[in-house]
Amino acid sequence: MAGPVDEFELIARHFDWPARHSEVSVAVGDDAALLDPKPGTRLAVSTDMLIAGRHFPLNSAPEAIAHRALAVNLSDLAAMGATPLGFTLSLGLPQTQADWLTRFAAQLRTGAERWGCDLIGGDTVGSPVLTISVTVIGSLPTGKALTRGGGKPGDRLAVTGSIGDAALGLVLALGEESPPALSPSAAAFLRERLDYPEPRVSTGRALLTHASAALDCSDGLLQDIGHLLAASDLAAEIDIDALPVSPAAAEWLESRPADWIRLVTGGDDYELIVALPPGVEIDPAWGVTVIGRLIDGPVGEIREAQGRALPERRGYTHFPSTSADKGDNANG
Amino acid sequence: MAGPVDEFELIARHFDWPARHSEVSVAVGDDAALLDPKPGTRLAVSTDMLIAGRHFPLNSAPEAIAHRALAVNLSDLAAMGATPLGFTLSLGLPQTQADWLTRFAAQLRTGAERWGCDLIGGDTVGSPVLTISVTVIGSLPTGKALTRGGGKPGDRLAVTGSIGDAALGLVLALGEESPPALSPSAAAFLRERLDYPEPRVSTGRALLTHASAALDCSDGLLQDIGHLLAASDLAAEIDIDALPVSPAAAEWLESRPADWIRLVTGGDDYELIVALPPGVEIDPAWGVTVIGRLIDGPVGEIREAQGRALPERRGYTHFPSTSADKGDNANG
Repeated sequence: MAGPVDEFELIARHFDWPARHSEVSVAVGDDAALLDPKPGTRLAVSTDMLIAGRHFPLNSAPEAIAHRALAVNLSDLAAMGATPLGFTLSLGLPQTQADWLTRFAAQLRTGAERWGCDLIGGDTVGSPVLTISVTVIGSLPTGKALTRGGGKPGDRLAVTGSIGDAALGLVLALGEESPPALSPSAAAFLRERLDYPEPRVSTGRALLTHASAALDCSDGLLQDIGHLLAASDLAAEIDIDALPVSPAAAEWLESRPADWIRLVTGGDDYELIVALPPGVEIDPAWGVTVIGRLIDGPVGEIREAQGRALPERRGYTHFPSTSADKGDNANG
Repeated sequence: MAGPVDEFELIARHFDWPARHSEVSVAVGDDAALLDPKPGTRLAVSTDMLIAGRHFPLNSAPEAIAHRALAVNLSDLAAMGATPLGFTLSLGLPQTQADWLTRFAAQLRTGAERWGCDLIGGDTVGSPVLTISVTVIGSLPTGKALTRGGGKPGDRLAVTGSIGDAALGLVLALGEESPPALSPSAAAFLRERLDYPEPRVSTGRALLTHASAALDCSDGLLQDIGHLLAASDLAAEIDIDALPVSPAAAEWLESRPADWIRLVTGGDDYELIVALPPGVEIDPAWGVTVIGRLIDGPVGEIREAQGRALPERRGYTHFPSTSADKGDNANG
């Protein structure tokens, strides 16, 4: 696509995939998509916009951009305990090479198939800066959802996966400060965690009947715990020593022990933060680690179990510019 | 907002409205919105992205931008016969003045209330160019919808409102060619039709049980009729003399009779194009005018009843740049 893009040709070539869910009656091609939710279904809807140079580096691989655009949205669905159903994609495209769009679309389709989320529509427009807006729709049993506000005093606070890898990967990606000496595999792992965040879709779905509250960790662990606390009207105690740290991040911390602060404020983890009531037995398949508990106290306060001072600034902006850049919020 | 925007503060100040539909269980504030469709409901979903300088002039009033962002999406729902339920809003914002956002949000809320469409979530990010992505969700009775593909030979082809006003308004807005002498009220009307397109929500809903096919007219009347014909496997005959022309456009055509071609190719009308089976009696409340009929013939062909030659190029790009700029397509 060296020349101008014909939108109809573009869609036919790159985005005309068959829908897999029987709920999708009309996907791409009419004025709107048509969804027929199964009886007893409620829908979860979330949206995120990604801007080149703000939410991913300008030189990111098209595969990484496509993966991220879908993954960060699916992470929001996972945090509600919802099962992905479909998504719309709006693309603001500068003049692009055909190769870029081919690679972007192929990776998007890979993600859509892997996570069972049908492309149900979109829009393609010209833009001076590459801009991607995805809206995802997931399904839940009527009356069920993992909101942020259901936590109770005594609930354990747990997280999926490992925390802080993406924050360290970002230091490597930006190249603005010298990182510690790392094994090549550790460095590659941290970059991978930044570029290919893994939405915890199946864990979110499994936790729907067990957790009392949940959200996804995208703005920094402490900041996001704060959101759960604000919605649940509680405080929390967390134990930094209990934090799940990947071998690669552990290698980093050996040289730079003070960087644990990066891990809990850095963001971009796309892990789940969940509250688990006392009676709930943790299934190893969930891949969660308990890092603390919810307590009565000043709403939003987070204490460290060993008395360590937690940083005032609980979250980071991903890419340097104004603070408006990191608004995964209204929902997100 | 002379300084950086705090996203949470921004949402609380401008976008924290109560939801009106009982189907909206959780709107703004969690990882995702929750919708509980009433039993027997199907959902229509559509999305459009608007880029400053491409889809509206850079100096557009914030009210016009907010109106347009919601209206063009609601026009897609109207074209399916759906009743608006909710929408997500993603905003890519350059450094803006507080006044801009206040005016934008106030107009958006006016539209949301007028058309009964709840804001159910969104995202606010920094962007070098003002970018707005809206995804609307509407409801329909299960099994019903006005798709593009239901037209039959013998159906009357009709349009709502008047056609071509926005195309003439665009000539006035761009100021690149000298328009004919017009009365001030005619010029103001044409600009208003460009800046404040009116989605035909109630007519679309009323036509759900009467029309055999529909779509909205945004890319140019001839081009959009072509989409209906392609989906319905038919040809059409239209009578240019039957075209509903506003008094303002009629004033223009008095000086420039050849500009009827602008009217049928100019786009931005956001009127509905509908196919009405022979037995259907037209209700004056729909505000439609019959302009032709569907016929057997080469798929997509449009003949003019008086034998006039129709232009090869059936639709226009709104704002000068590549043809990728006008892709209201995947759905839209």
